[in-house]
Formats: sequence, C-alpha cells, structure tokens
Amino acid sequence: MERRTFLKAAGGTAAVAATASLAAPAISQNRTEWRMVTTWPKNFPGQGTSAERLAQTIGELTDGRLNIKVFGAGEIVPAFESFDAVTGGAADCMHATPYYWQNKSKALNFFSTVPFGMTTGELNAWMKFGGGQELWDRVYDGFGLKGWSAGSTGVQMGGWYNKEINTVADLQGLKMRIPGLGGEALSKLGVTTISLPVGEIFSALQSGTIDATEWVGPFNDLAPGFYKVAQYYYWPGMHEPGTAAEFTVDKAKFEALPNDVQRIVAAAVGDESERFTAEFNYRNGGALDVLVREHGVQLKRFPTDVLQAWGEASGEVIASLRDTGDPLTKETTESFLKARRELMAWSRIGEQAFMNARLLDYTYG
Amino acid sequence: MERRTFLKAAGGTAAVAATASLAAPAISQNRTEWRMVTTWPKNFPGQGTSAERLAQTIGELTDGRLNIKVFGAGEIVPAFESFDAVTGGAADCMHATPYYWQNKSKALNFFSTVPFGMTTGELNAWMKFGGGQELWDRVYDGFGLKGWSAGSTGVQMGGWYNKEINTVADLQGLKMRIPGLGGEALSKLGVTTISLPVGEIFSALQSGTIDATEWVGPFNDLAPGFYKVAQYYYWPGMHEPGTAAEFTVDKAKFEALPNDVQRIVAAAVGDESERFTAEFNYRNGGALDVLVREHGVQLKRFPTDVLQAWGEASGEVIASLRDTGDPLTKETTESFLKARRELMAWSRIGEQAFMNARLLDYTYG
Repeated sequence: MERRTFLKAAGGTAAVAATASLAAPAISQNRTEWRMVTTWPKNFPGQGTSAERLAQTIGELTDGRLNIKVFGAGEIVPAFESFDAVTGGAADCMHATPYYWQNKSKALNFFSTVPFGMTTGELNAWMKFGGGQELWDRVYDGFGLKGWSAGSTGVQMGGWYNKEINTVADLQGLKMRIPGLGGEALSKLGVTTISLPVGEIFSALQSGTIDATEWVGPFNDLAPGFYKVAQYYYWPGMHEPGTAAEFTVDKAKFEALPNDVQRIVAAAVGDESERFTAEFNYRNGGALDVLVREHGVQLKRFPTDVLQAWGEASGEVIASLRDTGDPLTKETTESFLKARRELMAWSRIGEQAFMNARLLDYTYG
Repeated sequence: MERRTFLKAAGGTAAVAATASLAAPAISQNRTEWRMVTTWPKNFPGQGTSAERLAQTIGELTDGRLNIKVFGAGEIVPAFESFDAVTGGAADCMHATPYYWQNKSKALNFFSTVPFGMTTGELNAWMKFGGGQELWDRVYDGFGLKGWSAGSTGVQMGGWYNKEINTVADLQGLKMRIPGLGGEALSKLGVTTISLPVGEIFSALQSGTIDATEWVGPFNDLAPGFYKVAQYYYWPGMHEPGTAAEFTVDKAKFEALPNDVQRIVAAAVGDESERFTAEFNYRNGGALDVLVREHGVQLKRFPTDVLQAWGEASGEVIASLRDTGDPLTKETTESFLKARRELMAWSRIGEQAFMNARLLDYTYG
C-alpha cells in the first residue's frame, strides 16, 4: 500500500483541513469539506436518503467542523467508478456496498452479502465481534481506505418472474437480470444471467428480452412499477439475505482529522446503520401490503427442490471464493463460514424458532 | 407533568453545566458531569459493559464536555429505584429497560418486549419509523424523562427446567421464576410464577424451591451455571422475543446541553445500540456451543400445543393492556399491533423464509 500523506491527498480536493498539531482554540477556524460520491441516484429513497442523513448528522455532531457534500451517481463519476474516485482523490469518501468492488478483492463480497449466507443481525455480529471488521480493514488497507457497515436492506426478494418456477428444470434457459454471486449460482442451474441498470429493467421485462429480474425488496421495487410487467413475485431471496451498505473514506484523510471528529464519524455511521436497517424493514412491510392489496401481486414461494439446488450451487460459489489463491480471501471465507455455523445454530432455536411459533393459530390482542 | 428546571435539577447532582447562552470559546471550560445509575451489576457482561462503553463514547465524542460516571445496581440506589433516582435528581440518567417501570405506565412494556411480540429488527422498525419512539416520548414526557433504545438481547431462551414439558397439563402447578408479562401469560396456564433476583435463582433450583427459571439467553445464562442444577434448556423464549435496553436521561438537563452535545448523545446511543445487539447475537452463538458441547446441556423445543396455548394466553395479556383505561397505553397497544401485523407479513416471506430454507440439506463452502 502506498500511504499517501494527508496534505498530498487534500490537494486534489476542496478540503481545508485541521491537523493534529494545531492548538485547540483554533479548531473553530478549521472546517474540513469532503465530497461523498454514492452509487445511488441523488436522494434515492432508502440508500440515497440515508447517505444524506449521515452527512447531515456528521455536520451537526462536529458543529460544522466536518462538512460532507453528497453527490448522486453520475454527478462526479458514474456509480461504479466511486471506488476509484476515492482512491484517486476525486472524492474523499463514498456510500456504496462492498461487493460492487469484488474485482478488487473477492473477499469484499462477504462484507455485503453472499448467497445463502447470514441475516442482517448475524452479519453485524460477525462484523463487530467475530473478526469481520478486522478482515475488511486488512483488505481496504491495501487500497488506503477505511470502511464501516452503513445499514442493511434486509433479506431481498427472489425477484419478478413472468414464468412459473415449479421444478429445477424450469430454470433452464430462463433469461434473468441478476448480477454478482447470486447470478453465478443461478447460472450453474441453467439460468442465462445478464446485468442491467435499474432504468432498463422495466422495458426489458415488458418486451420479453428477459423473463425475470431481481432488484431489492418491496420498498425499492414498488416505485419502478415492476408489478405492471411481471406476474409473479417470488420469495425468499436466497441470493442476498441482507445486503450491507458501506460508508468508506480515504484512510489518510480520516486519520488527519482531530480525534474527536474521527470518533464522531464512526459513531454517526453506526447510528445511521441501525436507522437504515429499520427504515428498510418498516417500509418493506408497508410496500408489501400495497403491492398485494392494491396491485394484486401474486406472491410465490420457490419450490423446496429449487431452493435446495440453489443452496448447493451457492455452496460451490462460496467454495470457489475460498480457493481463489488469495490468502486474505481464504481467511475471510473461513472466518465467515465459522461465524455462520455458530450463528445459524443460535438463530435456529432463537429468532427463527420464535418467528415460526408466532405463526401458529391463536388470537392476539 | 412537573417540568423541573435545569438549575433546580442540577442542584441535586455534581453537574457543572454549559448553558446555551454561553459563547462558543467558553465551551472548553464547561464540563458537565453526569451520574448514570444502572439496573445491572457494575460491569455485568453485556448490559453493564455496554453502559460503560456508551459513557466512554460520549466522553470521547464530546471531547470531555459531557462526562458520565456509571454506577452499578446498589451503588447509589437499588436497581429498581433507578427510575425514581433520575426523576428525583439523585442521578442524571440511567441504563435499564422500560418494562421495569410498568408500574408507572403499562405502555412501557411495548418499548422493551412483550410475549409473542416482535423481533429486534421489527421492534427497531416500529420504534424508528412506525411511531414507537413518539409514543414512548409522550409517556416519558409525563415524568420529565427522554429515553432511547440502547440495544437488544435478541430472542431469549424459554428457560431452564427440571421437569419435561410434554403437554399443556404439565405446566399445571409448575413453580417457575419468570417475571412480568411473560409470567402473567404462563400463570394463565397454571404455572405458579415467582420473582427472584438472579443471585438467588441457582440455590432455589438446586433445592427444588422452583422447578424452572428463565433468565436471558446462552450468553447471560452460562456464567451463573444454571446447567449444573437444571437438566433441560427449552426454546424458543416466546415471552421475550428481543428485549430492548434503554438509555434514559432527565429531559430538562438534556435540553440544557449545547445542541451538538445533545446530537452526540443521541447518535452515541444509536451506535452503541447496534453494538449491544451484535454482541448478544455473537456471544449467544458461542455460549450455546459451550453449553451443548462442553456441558452436555439438553436443548428441548416446547411442544406445539404448549406454544399455541401460550400464544393464546399472551394474546389475552396484550388485550388487557389495551383495555387498562389509560388512553396512551391503548394507543400504544394499537400502534404496536398494526406494526406487528405488517412486519410479520414481511418477515414471513423475508428473513424467516430465508432462515428456514437455509436449513435445507446442501453442502456449503
């Protein structure tokens, strides 16, 4: 890793920074300005609005000592150039999700989500207490970055389908928009996977160019109106069981901030992370209600043999990550698998068992 | 509500406070000292250590402008006098859980947990986006308090039993340590419920004074060694499906803090809330492994007819909360029930369905 100095990095931005050597009374004169790029459209409900809240919170908590201006995808750089924008100095920080950068390191998938992996709560447990954050720090150290989890979408939906899926054979030749490792697993079952930006999904479904698409969940899926051009809304979304966003900064610029400002940034992300997750959970509940009651969407569960074959294919994808030859990706895979084993055993008799028993037949309230 | 002024309240403590009218350069001279009482023993692993971390974080983020000293249960007042200690001025804030104060308002149960209620994620969704926090604020306004959720234990265990529970009839005459609404529901099924402080549970189980006890979950239950004096560890703990801690302050003292310090306190609680929850999740997984593998604990699932009867009894308890005659408790109950309906429908096809499908038979990694 080339550790750029703060001053050199700051030269590429609008930053006017405090340094640790300045005396305390001068702090009020030192106002750092940062530019945050995001992989979401400006103010995109959920992800984009959370990025704005985070920037605002940091400004308030630091009493204006760190002001962050948020840019939507395409305003400074296209969405998928956000990582390079931060490492290259065109931006100071980003709001995104780590698996977008899996071309930098396959290990990054685990800090977002992987097929058949862990729930939001389990992932947070691993990240904060099971060594996940330390592994991520080691990966990002190689790029001069520091990242924090910034909230989760929760379990995603299996997607919008115009064909019924009754057997594994029905997946053969299905044309589906599904990126990343989820797509890799489904392609092992014969699905032809393609990647499309969200703005092109609707017409591709309508024209029959694709038979199916996944996007996120009820909250994010309601606005694009997929229910108008697809009959079935399948569950559960085993490919992304709780996708974590990231807030990631240029590490050298971060470490040049006064100590209390550094601590405020970290705490503000943690605070906003829980809010992001709560918002998705709450609005997914409400949007699902609208989709079913107002738009007559048909919810369908994937058949058990499809789920099982999907699990087997996902397991192969995870094994391939362990065996890429990169030691840090191997170590991350093994740490993740150990945490998943222990946390699954606990969830099985805890949260999962509670939710299953809660569905029994009784009068409540 | 009697709104005590800040200065009057401060007179009862060691506080030396900044007021909003002081000029900015004087801020560094204004250091507020607060006393936090807790309902946990000093540094109790999980709850007590989280309270300490929160106090430390607030000190660091405010660069020493707000310093909070944490006291364990019994150091200033006994655990269950913490609420009155804050309203009376003997302390400035507390770390506890709202249902401990249900003698002040039955509505407070909902901000901790209720039998057959909501998971940690669902409760957070309701609190932050479904109106839960606003209802809690209205309840606590009546006492001059302001509270925030400070993390969740996750779904608790059903408890330690020395008798097998095979039918609903087996509950008849069972002597169990189980407090609160969970105990109320079980007493409708014939259980003789008693309340005991944690230090007396072990010997009561050993001597046969009680046949069963609930405490928290694997992480908190391992240290007291209940596995030495009880054969069966039952799941799931339908009586407490994710109990939220609270950080609660004297509202007038809070509002007298500078704006940025107020914002820091709120964000620090949110940040620590997610950490608290993650720690319980992670350590419950590890402790369960130790209990089963090293101590040979027998895990048992409550039979379905017991769970169903328990649900019915819990539903009656919730109905009785709606009908206490207090309008705010009624409104809180109805808001909670609406959120539970919507969030259950989403969890059923989201997180719950994911976890169930994840247990299918396939090779992973």
